[in-house]
Amino acid sequence: MSSAEQTVRVPAGLKGVQVTDTEIGDVRGSEGFYHYRQYSAVELAEKRSLEDVWQLLLDGSLPANRAASEQFASLVRGQRDLPAGVSEQLPGIVAAGSASGDPGGGNPLGSLRTALSLAGSAWGLQPIWDLDQQQLRRDLIRICAATPTLVAAIYRLSNGLEPIQPDAQLSHAANYLFMVTGERPEAELARALEQYLILTVDHGFNSSTFTARVIASTGADAAAAVVGAIGALSGPLHGGAPSRALDTIHAIGSPERAEDYIRGLLSGGERVMGFGHAVYRTEDPRSAMLSGVAQRLGGGLVDLAVQVEKTVLEVLAETKPERPLYTNVEYYAGVVMDRCGLPEDMFTPTFAVSRVIGWCANIAEQARERKLIRPSARYIGPPAPAPVPEAD
Amino acid sequence: MSSAEQTVRVPAGLKGVQVTDTEIGDVRGSEGFYHYRQYSAVELAEKRSLEDVWQLLLDGSLPANRAASEQFASLVRGQRDLPAGVSEQLPGIVAAGSASGDPGGGNPLGSLRTALSLAGSAWGLQPIWDLDQQQLRRDLIRICAATPTLVAAIYRLSNGLEPIQPDAQLSHAANYLFMVTGERPEAELARALEQYLILTVDHGFNSSTFTARVIASTGADAAAAVVGAIGALSGPLHGGAPSRALDTIHAIGSPERAEDYIRGLLSGGERVMGFGHAVYRTEDPRSAMLSGVAQRLGGGLVDLAVQVEKTVLEVLAETKPERPLYTNVEYYAGVVMDRCGLPEDMFTPTFAVSRVIGWCANIAEQARERKLIRPSARYIGPPAPAPVPEAD
Repeated sequence: MSSAEQTVRVPAGLKGVQVTDTEIGDVRGSEGFYHYRQYSAVELAEKRSLEDVWQLLLDGSLPANRAASEQFASLVRGQRDLPAGVSEQLPGIVAAGSASGDPGGGNPLGSLRTALSLAGSAWGLQPIWDLDQQQLRRDLIRICAATPTLVAAIYRLSNGLEPIQPDAQLSHAANYLFMVTGERPEAELARALEQYLILTVDHGFNSSTFTARVIASTGADAAAAVVGAIGALSGPLHGGAPSRALDTIHAIGSPERAEDYIRGLLSGGERVMGFGHAVYRTEDPRSAMLSGVAQRLGGGLVDLAVQVEKTVLEVLAETKPERPLYTNVEYYAGVVMDRCGLPEDMFTPTFAVSRVIGWCANIAEQARERKLIRPSARYIGPPAPAPVPEAD
Repeated sequence: MSSAEQTVRVPAGLKGVQVTDTEIGDVRGSEGFYHYRQYSAVELAEKRSLEDVWQLLLDGSLPANRAASEQFASLVRGQRDLPAGVSEQLPGIVAAGSASGDPGGGNPLGSLRTALSLAGSAWGLQPIWDLDQQQLRRDLIRICAATPTLVAAIYRLSNGLEPIQPDAQLSHAANYLFMVTGERPEAELARALEQYLILTVDHGFNSSTFTARVIASTGADAAAAVVGAIGALSGPLHGGAPSRALDTIHAIGSPERAEDYIRGLLSGGERVMGFGHAVYRTEDPRSAMLSGVAQRLGGGLVDLAVQVEKTVLEVLAETKPERPLYTNVEYYAGVVMDRCGLPEDMFTPTFAVSRVIGWCANIAEQARERKLIRPSARYIGPPAPAPVPEAD
């Protein structure tokens, strides 16, 4: 847009730029606190089920009593099956991704992007502006309920295993673990994963959430918005790091090797994955809780992770006293997911299983706003118009 | 982000907010002028081929001579085939969309979104930050070159026809028409469509372009960014209107009915599709040129469209003198595409065939910027934290 129009310059990457109002939640980076609606996310993860938190995000309030809680849980359990025509396409989708020669059966987030896009068409989703509130709610629930089914099926097909049908006796988190591993999980593992999922449902206007809202602002169908968000989540700057932190822990191998390894990394100018965050100036509240979740489960990997974390923080405090760094969500997220039996290439897809609930709450809010998001840019190229040379 | 952080408030929908610098082009709404790099887009459409303009957008300059022009055209001709595994999946993708009961074989943009996502995985596209400039350029060319092949195949499969292989003898525009209709187009029709495509390659930071840039800012692969942009383009506020303007023209049917029909619409408080634009305060320069393109082709529909436009502008000037409205790009875009033999449900997918070139130029620019786009929002819900009630 030319300088003749009214324009506003903002910080690069829209950092700190409040692009809209929201009632979904907030992140208070300097306090190490974040919340969904009026509730601390950490406290929700301590006290409530994922389904309750899902309803809180989507409808604006927690279920008032056990009957209301069970009613919503029952509603979403009934939406786990894939729409007609999608299951049949999944092997081809996974095979096309694998044929590219990617190790590990291709990129599971890429397959999820394709499969969810296909599911959106198979459901016949209509533009969100053509829907009343109940129709949009139905579409958003379908998307969130079917995402674990897609993720698990893609994982199993990539590994030469038959997909597993959802089990309506299990909670959202337990059923997801069941569909991935083929075994009904122990209660404590299902609860640990559920707490991880609750903690990562939403987190302010991160890039994938913002992507979903920009697409929704055009009135496009909800699957279009979620598919775009999955794309953003696949970026290494956004959703790609939990396995890298775990890789570091595995590479260290035993507690007594931690200090030498960490000093070696830092003196070589490398970053230690799982530490530091763009928003938090304190410990990441998600990390603090997930550390407790991991220690509740226990085991050799957890003991190692605790020791490595302690060492990293000590060495960082000693070598970079001017810039305190804290453990971020990725560090213990990887440990918890590993402990629950999820393989590393499922860490980011599992993040999508929870975050899709936050995206969908944001799509619903954006649908009510009915305002196109269409920014501007400053042209800094050569002055126009220059005469166009004729093709010779 | 809490008020303790440094925040900036901006106009709703980021209107007029310059989120970044660009060298790709600009829209000067008050002048009725827009340009790609330093050249008037309209002048480019008068003088150059689509392939030349594509190179201008992607590489920053027009080919210096005929040999350079032919070299790029030859390069992109060689990239029209779909990657292994995609053609086999297309019938299933189209069928899943049609099974939803949508009239006309489902939503072709939804199928394109799925198919391009699949193609991205089949090419094994890597995160843009892991690529050097030549590798990224190769990926972007693949996406743009294969998009018409996908769009045409989806159209034909939706209508029970066999997809047609690309013809390397034909230009990008002519080959697209050939793959849709099954007939090698007359030169004047191919040129008319080519001029439409050139005029719609890019247009500032519209919502789909911005979506592509937000996704690219995470470092995700280029297909992830384009798939998100297709989603935004599918929104009724963005890419959905060319067929509606044509519907109005068809509904009027003959020139002498124009005035009564238009007065009827306006007195009923309805909008006339194809008039007015968010940015231009003058005639849309794309409309002015496409009107000429249409009249060059001639025919009954074109005569009718010219008469209807004249009537609409007269009636609008009489009934709404305080708010001058001008013809926008959609009006003659529909007429030109219809005249070229493209059915109405292909109008927005055809828009994607050109706009993908703009998206990809923007992805390349965003890749060089290496800065995550992560805005913020203002929380306006009930104060947090409130105590979380125990599940009863």
